[in-house]
Formats: sequence, C-alpha cells, structure tokens
Amino acid sequence: MENMNIGHHISRQFNEELEDVRNQVLIMGGLVEQQITDAVKSLVEGDSRLAEEVIENDHKVNGLEVAIDEECTQILARRQPAASDLRLVIAVIKTITDLERIGDQAEKIARMGLHLSQMERPKGQYYEVQSLGERVIKMLHQTLDAFARMDVDAAIKVSQQDDKIDHEYDGIMRKMVTFMMEDPRSIKRSLDVIWSVRALERVGDHSKNICEYVIYLVKGKDVRHTEYMKKAVED
Amino acid sequence: MENMNIGHHISRQFNEELEDVRNQVLIMGGLVEQQITDAVKSLVEGDSRLAEEVIENDHKVNGLEVAIDEECTQILARRQPAASDLRLVIAVIKTITDLERIGDQAEKIARMGLHLSQMERPKGQYYEVQSLGERVIKMLHQTLDAFARMDVDAAIKVSQQDDKIDHEYDGIMRKMVTFMMEDPRSIKRSLDVIWSVRALERVGDHSKNICEYVIYLVKGKDVRHTEYMKKAVED
Repeated sequence: MENMNIGHHISRQFNEELEDVRNQVLIMGGLVEQQITDAVKSLVEGDSRLAEEVIENDHKVNGLEVAIDEECTQILARRQPAASDLRLVIAVIKTITDLERIGDQAEKIARMGLHLSQMERPKGQYYEVQSLGERVIKMLHQTLDAFARMDVDAAIKVSQQDDKIDHEYDGIMRKMVTFMMEDPRSIKRSLDVIWSVRALERVGDHSKNICEYVIYLVKGKDVRHTEYMKKAVED
Repeated sequence: MENMNIGHHISRQFNEELEDVRNQVLIMGGLVEQQITDAVKSLVEGDSRLAEEVIENDHKVNGLEVAIDEECTQILARRQPAASDLRLVIAVIKTITDLERIGDQAEKIARMGLHLSQMERPKGQYYEVQSLGERVIKMLHQTLDAFARMDVDAAIKVSQQDDKIDHEYDGIMRKMVTFMMEDPRSIKRSLDVIWSVRALERVGDHSKNICEYVIYLVKGKDVRHTEYMKKAVED
C-alpha cells in the first residue's frame, strides 16, 4: 500500500511535469506570436519604438527555449519516459527549436521595420507585408492551437496553409522585381520588404514543422518528407 | 557470472548502437557537404546537369534524417540512457535537423543554378558565390570534424567563423545593390545570386548550431544564447 501510494505519487508528479512542459511551450508560443504580430505592425506602421521593443524582447524567447530544453533533458534523465510520453518530450524539444527560430524571424522583421521607418514611405504602405503577415500569424496561431489540443486533424489542415503562403510570397516577389526595375532608386527599400516577406514565409515553414511534430506525437509516425499528410486528407 | 556476461553484452551492444548513430550522422554530414559543394559548383560553372543531380539527391538526405531520428527514438525508449549518453542522443536529434536544413539550402542553391544557367553569364562569373561558398564549405567540414572528434575547443573556434561569413555576406549584398541600381536589367539575375549567398549564409548559421551541440554534449552546458563561447576563448 505504501509502495502503491509512492508509485501513484511519482506518476502524478511525472504527469504534472509533462503538463508543465506543455504549458511552457504554449507560453513560449504565445510570446513568439506576439513578437511576430508586433514586428509586422512596427514595419507596416513605421513604429520604430515598437520595433525596438521586439528586438529587445527576443532574449525572453531565447531564455524560454533554454529553460524548456533543460526541463526536457531532466525529464528524460530522471523519468526515462516510454511510448507517448517519450514522443511528447521529443516533440517539445523539436517544437521549441522552431519557435525560437520564429522568434529570430520576428527580430529580423523588426530590424527591417527600423530601417524602413527612416525611409520615405511607399504609396502601397507596405500592404504586401501586412497581408502576408496576417496570413502567417493566423497559421501560427492555429498551429499553437493544434499543439495545445494535440489535434492531428487540425495539424494536417493547418500545415497545408503553407502552400498558400508560398504562393502569396511568390506573387509579392514578382511584384517587387517589377517595382525595382521601374524605379531603381527603390531597390534598397524593396530589398528590406523582400527580406521581411521572406522572413514571414519562413515562419510558415516553421509552423508547418510544428504541425508535423503534433502528428508524429499523436500518431507515432514520422510524417516529414512523406506523402502521409496528403494521403491523410484524401482518405 | 551469467548475469555479468549478459550485462556486459548489453552494454557492449548499447555502445555499438551509439557508435552506429554517430557514424550515421557523419555519413549524413558527408552527403550534405557534397550537396553544398556540388550546388555551388553547378551555379558557378553553369552546369545544369549537376544542379539537377543535387535536387534529385535531396531525398537521400531526408531519408537519412528520418532513419537516424527513428534510431535515436528507439535508443531513448529501449536503453533509457543517462548523463553523457543521453546528451549524445539529444545532440544527434538536433544535429540532424540542422543537417537536413543545410541539405535544403543546397537544393535551393542548385535551383538558382538551374535558373542562372539559362541566363547570360555576368563578367564576374559568380565570383562572390564561389568565394563565400568556399568559406562556408570549409566551416561545415570543420564542424563535422569537431563533431566526429567531440572536440570542444575546435567547435568553439569553428563556430566563430560564422562572423566572418556574415561579414562577407554583408559585403556581397552591398555590391549586389550597387549592380542592380547601375543596371536594372540585371535585377532578376542579381536576386538569384542574392538568394544563393543568403542560403550559404544560413549554412553558416546551421554549422554554428551544430558546433554548439558539440559543446553542450561534451560540457553538458547549454551555450546557446549565452556568452559562454566568447568567455571560453578569452579564458
């Protein structure tokens, strides 16, 4: 009886640790989403103070990554989890790497925002960045939702939004090349816009990666580099 | 005695598994290094057949990532490694993610090579891509050496090459902007060159990440986002 209680207690504590790690990932995800949102806003509105805030806050994202990573390593060492618990810890280790890199993209966009705030504003008012930004932020938000609910179907659907992001990105690129050819003086500004939409496109890639970890976590299959997701939807 | 033999046998088998995983990472690393080398060569020499080969070979890189990842998960589940063995497995899981993404960059460069092989060649013969490519390939090679020998000092030194890569990259970017302003008809070609040097710069970032995993593996400290490496060199 004594032993059972201890066993029960340890198991409960273990569950709490896993739950805590999941919550921390969601906190990190929320912060990263805010960073991307603020970065896009700072660029579109020419708000250099907000851009500086985003750059300043990146260390918080990095700090969370290191802390969660450490917690995962501790859990692997002390709890020696098996099956789905093990997959959760591995999925978390991978997810926070992508979240940290989304954070880096937010910082990059904010730096472009700082640059651009000192230049003459174009007629389009950075409409392309705003539009692609909204799409990417929506995808990131839904990715974190799928992670929170461990929802495979949602993860599959969300990951497919990446194609639309790539498509919109290609269209913006063609437009920017035309701008630059028509007005070479706009090249420097156009390049900053290009870097920014490029960064947003990469946020889409990272979100897709996280969706794939969710699928791996629940299904226990490695879906990267396979046609699994396509098939899953056709089925 | 029987038991001891079994214990010894299991432990030897475990060591062999870890050794096998390490070797597989080096095989994957060698393939990725070849992919980057061929991609740069295809672009600089306008060799569209070589570019197509690189694009074709990317699935081999992806296949290796999935296989090694699976092996690591198996080891974690069956062996429940502790301390340095655990750190090795985690470091491998992270390293192959970066190697896979270096492979993606090779594919990207090869696609630019395909594009550029159909355009008129510039006077400079893509000297910038060749030069930055050599620097990046050298860094990647030394990174894999540091991983193979688990050499922390080498990893610290190699990771610092990333600054030089960033510096050279910035210089090329300034040059390309000047080109585009002087000759707007060169914008499309210049953008392909810009994407290529950008991809090379990212290979430097990924190599630096791998160096940091080596340091983490040996020292058991998380050096990302810290001044650890700088201090380590000053000491």
